[in-house]
Amino acid sequence: MNDKIELIRRSVAPEALEFPLHALDGPITPNELFFVRSHYDTPMIKAASWRLKVDGCVDQPIQFSLDDLMSMPKVSVESVLECAGNGRAALETPVPGLQWDCGAVGNAIWSGVSVRTLLELAGVTDRAVDVVFEGADRGKVKNPAAPCGDVAYARSIPRDLALSGWPILVYEMNGEPLSPAHGFPVRLIVPGWYGAASVKWVIRIVALDHAFGGYYQTSDYSYWQVNDGLPELRPIGAMPVKSLIARPTRGTYVQAGERIEICGAAWTGTGEVTAVEVSVDDGLNWGKAEMSSPSVAGSWRLWSFEWLVKGPCGVRTILSRARDSHGRVQATERDWNYGSYVIDHSIPVEINVTET
Amino acid sequence: MNDKIELIRRSVAPEALEFPLHALDGPITPNELFFVRSHYDTPMIKAASWRLKVDGCVDQPIQFSLDDLMSMPKVSVESVLECAGNGRAALETPVPGLQWDCGAVGNAIWSGVSVRTLLELAGVTDRAVDVVFEGADRGKVKNPAAPCGDVAYARSIPRDLALSGWPILVYEMNGEPLSPAHGFPVRLIVPGWYGAASVKWVIRIVALDHAFGGYYQTSDYSYWQVNDGLPELRPIGAMPVKSLIARPTRGTYVQAGERIEICGAAWTGTGEVTAVEVSVDDGLNWGKAEMSSPSVAGSWRLWSFEWLVKGPCGVRTILSRARDSHGRVQATERDWNYGSYVIDHSIPVEINVTET
Repeated sequence: MNDKIELIRRSVAPEALEFPLHALDGPITPNELFFVRSHYDTPMIKAASWRLKVDGCVDQPIQFSLDDLMSMPKVSVESVLECAGNGRAALETPVPGLQWDCGAVGNAIWSGVSVRTLLELAGVTDRAVDVVFEGADRGKVKNPAAPCGDVAYARSIPRDLALSGWPILVYEMNGEPLSPAHGFPVRLIVPGWYGAASVKWVIRIVALDHAFGGYYQTSDYSYWQVNDGLPELRPIGAMPVKSLIARPTRGTYVQAGERIEICGAAWTGTGEVTAVEVSVDDGLNWGKAEMSSPSVAGSWRLWSFEWLVKGPCGVRTILSRARDSHGRVQATERDWNYGSYVIDHSIPVEINVTET
Repeated sequence: MNDKIELIRRSVAPEALEFPLHALDGPITPNELFFVRSHYDTPMIKAASWRLKVDGCVDQPIQFSLDDLMSMPKVSVESVLECAGNGRAALETPVPGLQWDCGAVGNAIWSGVSVRTLLELAGVTDRAVDVVFEGADRGKVKNPAAPCGDVAYARSIPRDLALSGWPILVYEMNGEPLSPAHGFPVRLIVPGWYGAASVKWVIRIVALDHAFGGYYQTSDYSYWQVNDGLPELRPIGAMPVKSLIARPTRGTYVQAGERIEICGAAWTGTGEVTAVEVSVDDGLNWGKAEMSSPSVAGSWRLWSFEWLVKGPCGVRTILSRARDSHGRVQATERDWNYGSYVIDHSIPVEINVTET
């Protein structure tokens, strides 16, 4: 990595920092280049006094210290984490929210304790259908329809997912303790789900007998799904299949006759990425990219495509699209029911082709 | 009733008409004085071509004509219907929405077919947990976070309530066919629930395997319920216990020594109204009102309180509060987590007491 690569600041308070995607260099994003998306001021938590409560629909509410967690079996997952608003700045019609380019995404090795282990220790009951993770971060919400008083950042995942073994309460990121911005001492990682689910600074896990209707999955981080003619508000959850072009960047000049590499990353919420295709003519023809990293469940795959640049000269639109093992194909058009989230279609990169 | 009594127009498109509550005169509100709250233009439906579909989690999707419904056993219920925003104009801090005074409420005898009957004919399955009623009224929603395209007015009630025998698909209101504004040819009535649940112009009933997340129970007609420190967005549902003062009206002049009647109506979402109390000193002392109509499940009860006016002279605040058979007592303070809905606290009526 070039020493000069730095995160791009999208917001000071709360902190929002973006990875410059053109600097993509290997499947693991270094911690210091991992994007940050917080919703309130960063809580400064002392490891010694931190406690995690597990309550709700459980046989026995239980409390853990960080030492308790560290004495349990350590599990790791390599997982991509993407903000549900990543790519917003690329939308033709502006939408509200942080104007991320395409770098609110990263891939790391996350280590900690399985959520299943903690729920089993507390004795989660049959009545539980949803599991809420509450962060220590809280504050007022700027929305006329927000609840009264402070709102904690809190999010739920369905019971089955919580008990699947995939979600991890993480205390290490790429082998290092979490930084305060990434959730020290403990954060949730839900592989395959948008980052909104991966609550930072977790202080409580609550098993509920109903689907949680918290602020960050109704008023925020939600979208409209049309079922049989009836739109329904749904929490943003699992990620669809998606690829992004890291290089070349928008506005790059290339010469006809030159050989250039088009490269990027691709991932999917469940299953695995099976192929990435590239178009250098705005979607008319597609060629198959090569995978430059293995398929690791939860992680992204890097890909590259060699292009012997040919005319016509002028502005050209490059696209990539991914396919996954469920047969899903990345869309080339935006679905506006997603509002300001889930920008999962092929984002065009316009470059300039000049004569030899 | 005085011939000059007319509904107060709060909105032209969509239609919103308010009952002048001071004209309250007997437990049944005449059809021509029943408040109207529509969300789009009134659909003009021909009885002969109207059809009702029942589908979703059912053994056999089924369709009914109006003649089909009229040939089934006819059931009736006397039920109060109140808009969830009734009383908004009385709030000290203004909230968005139609600025109803206190007359977006009425009580009628509704007749039609039990929802249970229709669901049983279609063979509702064990997977169904929620039942959606879709109206023929639809249009664009003025909200940046609204779904794309037209949104039909649709609302759900839980399976158990749908099968309880209480909700009725109504084709008669006080013995007359429904008017177009009230949902001709068929509307839902859910006794005990705010009016938002009682979908007009019903054309479809859908049994869902999950809690419906429709626009009119998430983005609209919802409130924040704080459970164990975590606010959750909930659909507006059953009504709490409530009373309203119909007479005297705000600003009335009364003379010390005069005998006046304070009267109004009281109702509750479940159970029955057991008592109404009146205060003529802004809540310091309370006296028991007399019930002037019987307790009919689902309906309101009228009440009156005779007051021998005494000093001090000047502005005086009159309050009423109701109690129900669940031990609930109408609050005297506003709960702001309800946002612009559920104005269920005692609404003060300020009058002027003059010297003899």
